Amino acid sequence: MSCYVGVSMAKVTFEPSGKKINISSGISVLEAANNAGVGIDAPCGGKGTCGKCKVYLNQGTLGELTASERKVFSAGDIAKGARLACRATIQGDCIIDVPKESLLGEQKILVNGAEYPVEIDPLVKVFSVTLPKPTLEDNACDWHRLQNALAEQTDYDSIDMDISTLRTLPKIIRDQKYTISVTMYRNRVLAVGDPSLDAVYGAAVDIGTTTMVAYVMDLVSGKIIGVGSMMNPQIPYGDDLMARISYSFKEENLEKLSKLVVDGVNKIINEGCEKAGIEMSSLSEVTIVGNTAMHHIFLRLYPKYLSLAPYCPAVQHPLDLRASDVPININPVGNVHMLPVVAGFVGSDHLGVILSCDIHKSSEMTLAIDVGTNGEIVLGNKDGMVCCSAAAGPALEGSTIKYGMRAADGAIENVNISRGSLNVKYKTIGGSKPLGICGSGIIDVVAEMLKSAVIDVTGKIRERLEDENDRVREGDHGYEFVLEWARRTKIKKDIVITSNDLREVQLAKSAMYAGASILMGHKGITAKEIDRVLIAGAFGNYIDVENAMTIGLFPEVPLDKVKSVGNAAGTGARMSLISGVKREEEREILEKLRYIELATHDTFQDEFVSAMNLPHKDISLFSETMKKVYAPIPVKNNR
Amino acid sequence: MSCYVGVSMAKVTFEPSGKKINISSGISVLEAANNAGVGIDAPCGGKGTCGKCKVYLNQGTLGELTASERKVFSAGDIAKGARLACRATIQGDCIIDVPKESLLGEQKILVNGAEYPVEIDPLVKVFSVTLPKPTLEDNACDWHRLQNALAEQTDYDSIDMDISTLRTLPKIIRDQKYTISVTMYRNRVLAVGDPSLDAVYGAAVDIGTTTMVAYVMDLVSGKIIGVGSMMNPQIPYGDDLMARISYSFKEENLEKLSKLVVDGVNKIINEGCEKAGIEMSSLSEVTIVGNTAMHHIFLRLYPKYLSLAPYCPAVQHPLDLRASDVPININPVGNVHMLPVVAGFVGSDHLGVILSCDIHKSSEMTLAIDVGTNGEIVLGNKDGMVCCSAAAGPALEGSTIKYGMRAADGAIENVNISRGSLNVKYKTIGGSKPLGICGSGIIDVVAEMLKSAVIDVTGKIRERLEDENDRVREGDHGYEFVLEWARRTKIKKDIVITSNDLREVQLAKSAMYAGASILMGHKGITAKEIDRVLIAGAFGNYIDVENAMTIGLFPEVPLDKVKSVGNAAGTGARMSLISGVKREEEREILEKLRYIELATHDTFQDEFVSAMNLPHKDISLFSETMKKVYAPIPVKNNR
Ligand code: FES
Ligand code: FES
Repeated sequence: MSCYVGVSMAKVTFEPSGKKINISSGISVLEAANNAGVGIDAPCGGKGTCGKCKVYLNQGTLGELTASERKVFSAGDIAKGARLACRATIQGDCIIDVPKESLLGEQKILVNGAEYPVEIDPLVKVFSVTLPKPTLEDNACDWHRLQNALAEQTDYDSIDMDISTLRTLPKIIRDQKYTISVTMYRNRVLAVGDPSLDAVYGAAVDIGTTTMVAYVMDLVSGKIIGVGSMMNPQIPYGDDLMARISYSFKEENLEKLSKLVVDGVNKIINEGCEKAGIEMSSLSEVTIVGNTAMHHIFLRLYPKYLSLAPYCPAVQHPLDLRASDVPININPVGNVHMLPVVAGFVGSDHLGVILSCDIHKSSEMTLAIDVGTNGEIVLGNKDGMVCCSAAAGPALEGSTIKYGMRAADGAIENVNISRGSLNVKYKTIGGSKPLGICGSGIIDVVAEMLKSAVIDVTGKIRERLEDENDRVREGDHGYEFVLEWARRTKIKKDIVITSNDLREVQLAKSAMYAGASILMGHKGITAKEIDRVLIAGAFGNYIDVENAMTIGLFPEVPLDKVKSVGNAAGTGARMSLISGVKREEEREILEKLRYIELATHDTFQDEFVSAMNLPHKDISLFSETMKKVYAPIPVKNNR
Repeated sequence: MSCYVGVSMAKVTFEPSGKKINISSGISVLEAANNAGVGIDAPCGGKGTCGKCKVYLNQGTLGELTASERKVFSAGDIAKGARLACRATIQGDCIIDVPKESLLGEQKILVNGAEYPVEIDPLVKVFSVTLPKPTLEDNACDWHRLQNALAEQTDYDSIDMDISTLRTLPKIIRDQKYTISVTMYRNRVLAVGDPSLDAVYGAAVDIGTTTMVAYVMDLVSGKIIGVGSMMNPQIPYGDDLMARISYSFKEENLEKLSKLVVDGVNKIINEGCEKAGIEMSSLSEVTIVGNTAMHHIFLRLYPKYLSLAPYCPAVQHPLDLRASDVPININPVGNVHMLPVVAGFVGSDHLGVILSCDIHKSSEMTLAIDVGTNGEIVLGNKDGMVCCSAAAGPALEGSTIKYGMRAADGAIENVNISRGSLNVKYKTIGGSKPLGICGSGIIDVVAEMLKSAVIDVTGKIRERLEDENDRVREGDHGYEFVLEWARRTKIKKDIVITSNDLREVQLAKSAMYAGASILMGHKGITAKEIDRVLIAGAFGNYIDVENAMTIGLFPEVPLDKVKSVGNAAGTGARMSLISGVKREEEREILEKLRYIELATHDTFQDEFVSAMNLPHKDISLFSETMKKVYAPIPVKNNR
């Protein structure tokens, strides 16, 4: 029998899932939920500030109400038993109701990036070679015998081998009667075996802040043969990177987060392998992209200094690690290739975008943006590129927006507001009643509010519309616009866009625009000279590009020059996996790419303020856009 | 409470040590003794053929007498309860007497090799470097910051680093305020730390078939600061290499033997570190020499093919392994350097001899011999060398000799036999009453018997002396010579040299001589052209060089050209540790050295037969020696 001394145990039940756990008292409801396998959203990382982890006490007692909770909840909420899962502590047996909007939903995951042609010539290859049988006159060692055979029958001059591979060599040579298969990564022998085994597999992994995808590939055909994906298992420790970096200041926390993501990567690669019907241990190589914080946490590199000026990464250039050192459960001596990161807030995901979109090789002047809490922007072509990271905040991902949510089932998107009547048409992901608004929906809403003149170009809701239309009304914190009425929503509340929401979107988009504008300044060009605008990331796949340009998220260019490139970061990882040439280009990109720090940039503040207007204070920069915008321009703003 | 199902347990007590063990019935007495920490000698590897593992049943019962035992023991022995520890099985509680001569004694271990001057310039070095503090304008990653600082302040252009080292870098840089110590092995960073730590340590290890020695060294001063040594823990699995190789045919046995020797190496390095007052984990590099079988078993490389024609090693060239891959418990990312092996039976120990004696750089024509079961012989100079392995058998190490024993306490050495009276004077190791004769003693005895004409030049005991002197008598298996009478020995038996013993010595020395002679043939030289003869190994340190030449172990040269170089193999490992130049020369030696296979050599059989005589059938080759030899030359031999 087990017994516990000093800590009393409690049985916690989560509803409506009915999941139960026995756990020691004193821990937070959030932690109990994580342990029980109930995913509760915690965008602020459990700091008690975002209010998204709301749960209800159904039965039993919890620790005393905290100051954070009093601040976040109304008296009515509190009367209903509302608690913040991250703040309320378990005191004994209890039943907790988890409302749908607090759950981490099944999210849309983008698994197919745009395809650019690339010649299949991976660094991992398999050969069948025949070794001369040793004699008393020619009794060189097995290693040399293999090396000489490879030199004669292939392009490898000299080889290297891990001791564990060497240990298998003498027996395999003789068991296979001197004709063996040899799997090579560069000049390193990864495996020797039966000559009939001539397949070689790898995986490309994109570790996103929110979602992770693994593409398992046949390295002979260059084809994807299986895909695995999951939510980033670090989400319970913070929706945004800063929360996770702060959490990792403690080394044991870093180990915890690192293990979560490494285990997660193993899981999704394995999922892809199962779909492909192959053993994960037969994979020879994995390439990985992610933002710099994910890159560091994955490798258990202390990420603190990424968050402090001057934001130095521990390592920038590409890394090649032995799989067992990570550990990634492919062939233990296989290679794990980490694509290089550019700077503290420009990761290998963005380098993957450049790589897969061939920006570094193209003569077209390209602006590529990857929208996120830290928006990554690059501008340039084969003659040189500049990049920056814009602190856009999480608004465009649905966080910090009152009814914001991730791009999951029930999220409003494709919004249309009729000019005059202000009738709202929209779709939701999955087609159900709405739960909230996702990032692409937010952009649509703001663009539509601008076009239909619900707001003026400064982003202010036009108060006088209150008298004309019930959708415009004064809420607790200023004016708001009702997108959908409570009776038609799943959450049984009016879904509204608040003045504050509008402000958050403006802050985000002006940071993005200011970044792009400063890059243009560095290249000495105007929007007219941009040949193409690429919008990368899952976000880019779902947004209405025209609406994004309407609110001034990026400089105005003819619409046909704008293209969503989907998960171009993941595509970059896949190209690196199947092409030694692309692999080499990673270093070329680092050389051609200059990072511009926005935080201390001379003109950033001015650029930022000017870009707060929708689409921009200088409307001459958006002359085409303004033709469709009916929002008034306040006189004082026009001075 | 524990309980055992199906296997009954027995309590076994070993006397006179009194060591006890509870062990399951059915296993051999030898295995029980090993488990109880009682080291019983088992030169044949437990095959029941050598008879050296004799024990006596004192109380209780053992498994039935085996055929091997009936063959090895006399009826008298059996009556006294004699058993072979390797054959007799435990049946229940019992008390076993282990006679002194069956115990593995504390052996003399040679820890100081000859010293040759070498410039101290190890591949592992430590530097203190100052990194420029990062700024927003210069925020390259920590790795590049370190790389650039090293490039400016030292000779390293680009660096490499294990992920585990990189993990420590960001914090150490900042904790140490941008001035850090950097320990490098070639261009690989092994450690970063407090800049006041400027020491760098390593160890050189010689894994002998019988004994193992570790020299812990300060790599700045090049001095030995601690030595550890022990008997090779594989001895219970076979005294000679062939027994251990055969045992390793089963992979689990290979793992067992490998673990034993790896653990042993860790133990002796740690012993040296304790003596030096340093932590083993602070060591950066270890260099290792050993014969090819030890090299393979240490690395867990399947050694079977070393024992089968054409005797291919798995790998010949030098290997550099990450310490944690072996595992050797120094800095886990430290380097373990295995000196190269030459062939299946010419190991890195012999290459260490060449390296430390500078044969490959010298203009002197050098013959170097390392006496052992497989005697290793090299002949040559800077213009090229040839080498071979002579299957001398274990006689010269005291095995297969009736009263042979290792060079341990109680072993007879420095023997002198008076001409005429045949009085015998001798010393024993440790000065106690004699237990047996060690290898160097055997050579003395045979040389003295030859000089004093107890034997003729064919090695035959002159039977007619039986009438003149009681020391010469007919024994169970032909004539024998009494070295010491029972009353003066510790074993209370006459210690004799039998006709068979003489034959064994002749077989051994003629194999060695034939090897040297064939090498001379390959170089096209005679003994006159040899500038120096070096005798390596513990054996070489103890033998009387003149006596060795007298019996014809190697070609006759003026005595002042012969030198014992002690543990030159270990010295080679030490040189490789403290000198990058010597390290490079390892590959140079491989290139200049040609291996000659004796087994299939045209003239080997003739050479071997001619060298059976003492010192040689062609006495003109030993004209100086023959002046001191009074042994008659039978007429039939002179035809
Ligand atoms: S308040 Fe609980 S997660 Fe943000
Ligand atoms: S007979 Fe037992 S060890 Fe040789």
